[in-house]
Amino acid sequence: MEIGFLGLGIMGKAMSVNLLKNGFKVTVWNRTLSKCNELVALGASVGETPAQVVKKCKITIAMLSDPAAALSVVFDKDGVLEQICGKCYIDMSTVDPETSCKISEAITSKGGHFLEAPVSGSKQPAETGQLVILAAGEKALYEEAIPAFNVLGKKSFFLGQVGNGAKMKLVVNMIMGSMMNAFSEGLVLADRSGLNPHDLLDVLDLGGIANPMFRGKGPAMLQDNYSPAFPLKHQQKDMRLALALGDENAVSMPVAAAANEAFKKARSMGLGDLDFSAVFETMKILKHSS
Amino acid sequence: MEIGFLGLGIMGKAMSVNLLKNGFKVTVWNRTLSKCNELVALGASVGETPAQVVKKCKITIAMLSDPAAALSVVFDKDGVLEQICGKCYIDMSTVDPETSCKISEAITSKGGHFLEAPVSGSKQPAETGQLVILAAGEKALYEEAIPAFNVLGKKSFFLGQVGNGAKMKLVVNMIMGSMMNAFSEGLVLADRSGLNPHDLLDVLDLGGIANPMFRGKGPAMLQDNYSPAFPLKHQQKDMRLALALGDENAVSMPVAAAANEAFKKARSMGLGDLDFSAVFETMKILKHSS
Amino acid sequence: MEIGFLGLGIMGKAMSVNLLKNGFKVTVWNRTLSKCNELVALGASVGETPAQVVKKCKITIAMLSDPAAALSVVFDKDGVLEQICGKCYIDMSTVDPETSCKISEAITSKGGHFLEAPVSGSKQPAETGQLVILAAGEKALYEEAIPAFNVLGKKSFFLGQVGNGAKMKLVVNMIMGSMMNAFSEGLVLADRSGLNPHDLLDVLDLGGIANPMFRGKGPAMLQDNYSPAFPLKHQQKDMRLALALGDENAVSMPVAAAANEAFKKARSMGLGDLDFSAVFETMKILKHSS
Amino acid sequence: MEIGFLGLGIMGKAMSVNLLKNGFKVTVWNRTLSKCNELVALGASVGETPAQVVKKCKITIAMLSDPAAALSVVFDKDGVLEQICGKCYIDMSTVDPETSCKISEAITSKGGHFLEAPVSGSKQPAETGQLVILAAGEKALYEEAIPAFNVLGKKSFFLGQVGNGAKMKLVVNMIMGSMMNAFSEGLVLADRSGLNPHDLLDVLDLGGIANPMFRGKGPAMLQDNYSPAFPLKHQQKDMRLALALGDENAVSMPVAAAANEAFKKARSMGLGDLDFSAVFETMKILKHSS
Repeated sequence: MEIGFLGLGIMGKAMSVNLLKNGFKVTVWNRTLSKCNELVALGASVGETPAQVVKKCKITIAMLSDPAAALSVVFDKDGVLEQICGKCYIDMSTVDPETSCKISEAITSKGGHFLEAPVSGSKQPAETGQLVILAAGEKALYEEAIPAFNVLGKKSFFLGQVGNGAKMKLVVNMIMGSMMNAFSEGLVLADRSGLNPHDLLDVLDLGGIANPMFRGKGPAMLQDNYSPAFPLKHQQKDMRLALALGDENAVSMPVAAAANEAFKKARSMGLGDLDFSAVFETMKILKHSS
Repeated sequence: MEIGFLGLGIMGKAMSVNLLKNGFKVTVWNRTLSKCNELVALGASVGETPAQVVKKCKITIAMLSDPAAALSVVFDKDGVLEQICGKCYIDMSTVDPETSCKISEAITSKGGHFLEAPVSGSKQPAETGQLVILAAGEKALYEEAIPAFNVLGKKSFFLGQVGNGAKMKLVVNMIMGSMMNAFSEGLVLADRSGLNPHDLLDVLDLGGIANPMFRGKGPAMLQDNYSPAFPLKHQQKDMRLALALGDENAVSMPVAAAANEAFKKARSMGLGDLDFSAVFETMKILKHSS
Repeated sequence: MEIGFLGLGIMGKAMSVNLLKNGFKVTVWNRTLSKCNELVALGASVGETPAQVVKKCKITIAMLSDPAAALSVVFDKDGVLEQICGKCYIDMSTVDPETSCKISEAITSKGGHFLEAPVSGSKQPAETGQLVILAAGEKALYEEAIPAFNVLGKKSFFLGQVGNGAKMKLVVNMIMGSMMNAFSEGLVLADRSGLNPHDLLDVLDLGGIANPMFRGKGPAMLQDNYSPAFPLKHQQKDMRLALALGDENAVSMPVAAAANEAFKKARSMGLGDLDFSAVFETMKILKHSS
Repeated sequence: MEIGFLGLGIMGKAMSVNLLKNGFKVTVWNRTLSKCNELVALGASVGETPAQVVKKCKITIAMLSDPAAALSVVFDKDGVLEQICGKCYIDMSTVDPETSCKISEAITSKGGHFLEAPVSGSKQPAETGQLVILAAGEKALYEEAIPAFNVLGKKSFFLGQVGNGAKMKLVVNMIMGSMMNAFSEGLVLADRSGLNPHDLLDVLDLGGIANPMFRGKGPAMLQDNYSPAFPLKHQQKDMRLALALGDENAVSMPVAAAANEAFKKARSMGLGDLDFSAVFETMKILKHSS
């Protein structure tokens, strides 16, 4: 199967390499075209515009950095829309439900087929084909894409109508944000009541709530190390969007709301660009800024 | 080494069997003495009273059902206190810090040595010697007990002064209670915003916050199955005690406080004897009782 | 001074009557023109369209039911915009900051002068000229309008740039919503701990936190009477908008967030169309809907 | 009627002066007896011990500084208990429900009659006879004391069994503490979103939630003036006790819980001895202590 691939950033490059290595023919495009060279060396073809890639391939996958870029490759001149009639487009970028729905409507109204498929997992799982794929949109396209998804990820889900992939990410990130607060509160409580927080990390890791996040971030947090894997301001934005989703559906979520306020407090302290585990800092002894 | 063992309930029986199987001489006592027979068949001796066991053994371990039982074997007639001078006593029951301190003071003031050592883990880890042991009190006694702890658990911690074992359990349970609320909110949000909550369970289990509790309890919760592994009223009591510990130390814990109020809401709905995952029920559509 | 008046609903009618009785010349318009008759009997002139009113009067006041109506009289055919060059427009409707800014920009870009001036107070204060006026926009217009504001209200404020009037209402309503929750929690706590909630009302009304809202709504709440003065769904929307304003400005507001979740719980119970004091119902004994 | 009066602090002195001025015969006692002189000049007799006062008077009122002092005058040598048989004792000090019940049991078991009657209001209402009296205990004694209560307060309540007076104060203070948080959040939100917080104070004072606390404390708060009328640590203690009362009765109070955590945050910042309005400080821009 010939597959188009738009966007060769850290994620997109790793994913298209995987496709090539697993026998797919791939035609790539990137805004800075020179980034395509490395893929060409592995056997890829190059398209000069998104429209050209879509014209050439039955299925085109996009992996772009943000909603603005995702909209741009579709709607701009020489963009996806111009050649989409009868073709398939899978957007694996992380975007909000509104952006995803806007792209979906444009593509389907032009006679194209659309799937949103944001992923869980970052650079390393992308390289090793261990992503988790949250697909939603046209079921037939999902099924057609399974061979590619099997190469890119360890597991893929079909979640129903467009928007559901984005919603699933919000729900997961909301739980993650509340857990990070619970964890931080526990670390502070341990410390101030005379326990060694490192002992707490060890005890947690041996019990029923042991999880990779506590294991991975705990030791760094105890050293005030918050180098950003997932920036706090993005985590807080996802909490806000998840709470907004709850608002639409009249779901009361007091724990998530309390966690969100703690992330806002962290933003007010200037911690928005650090890792979201920096919410831990809001719980330490504080004083007014002078 | 000869070890005394007081209390042959589910936990205590499994633990003393492990000691016997691993070459320790064990003298057992239980309030209902007939429960000792099975241990005798495996080579144990029997003491007729706690005092007799303590007199005979250098180290005596207790594993009792609750604070009242823990106090009773120490302070009652023919109790531990009567023969404790120069002997060692390790209370592995789950009790609050106050009870533990009361027992500690009585024993050390009579010339005995004391260690509190509550465990994390229930029946199965007790049988397989996979408990996690949270010891606190006399360091020398902890070190002397390590051979026994190595048989009973997969890992033991020495946490400092008496009370710290109980505190560590409170901190862990507080984090667990907040996580259960975050998880429940996520399940309800998924459901009401058109996602399949079973998909959420699968997605969670593939990511960075995957943990045994979500994996173990999630499917049952989606079937309204709350058979009590850890009763909600006890979880809420531990949240209250952890918040009280935070109050003493001026630690603000808004997420734990919000979770605690949800558990209280569950109690007001009559769910206190179900598993603590029944807090999920407070988040569903509710109406007034007539 | 000749004043135009657009919108003769409950509020607008009372306000234009006040202006007439206090010696202002008034030209009125209403979508259903027959509503103008009563004002004509008191001496008013009638304009056939918003544009006609604006053309005739130096200052035109609008008091419309919602943002959609506020936008319609400005932007529709024969609307305010068509004749606004060199004229003054004061919108006293309750609208969100975005709507207000949109109207402001359109009017000023056409050479008109704009003031937003939402009010605090409903029917009775409108009739007795006891409104509180929250004006923002062009300072010179505010000063020119003071004689009219003195007739319509007991107090007017100039709050700076357009949007600030709407923001001030959000802040006030957010405090009000949190207070209603605090009050409801107190009533339930009193009741369940063996006190008479009516005694609590009396004690509150004699102390430092006595206020008209507790005094006015408390007795009705104790009779499960929630006839809607301010519908709960609107209160919850204002809490949401106030929290969003806090989000923009990185202000952590955990009490308002907890109150908002209680209002959402009330919405999920089907109480959105009742008075916002119905949040009290969420705190009573609840059970699942069957 | 002859009335005994124990305790001539700020409150007690003002109250006994009021009784004297209104025709009651009063016998006073104070730990530092010289403080009685001023009362003697107004016509009072002096008792040398609490026991002597109780022996002489049918009804003795106590107004002491704290639970320790309240217990001391009753249980110490030459204390109230020694002469209480057949006599009446009204404790108007502010104490917790447990202290009140302890005093009540001792007095009634000796054949005395008991009423707890804590007051709402401080120095000025005490001087002007404008206190609010929250009585609980023996109904017949309450009725007998009404002439005295009419002199001391503007209103008295009979609230049922002993402990209810203290509980009513907790409920009122809980509502007050949540309101103070809501108010503080509003002031910060106003400030950071470009409004003048003084305007907010003025707008609030003209509307449905206007109350003496906002009016009295708002301007001082905006000047960072927190001279302690009611210390924050006491307010937080009352929040904690009110939440504990809710816990006993399975009442979920998420707004009070969030407010309590904010007060704890304030304590962690070293603000416990300032007025409880200093919780406002927790909401400003904060940074870590170095």
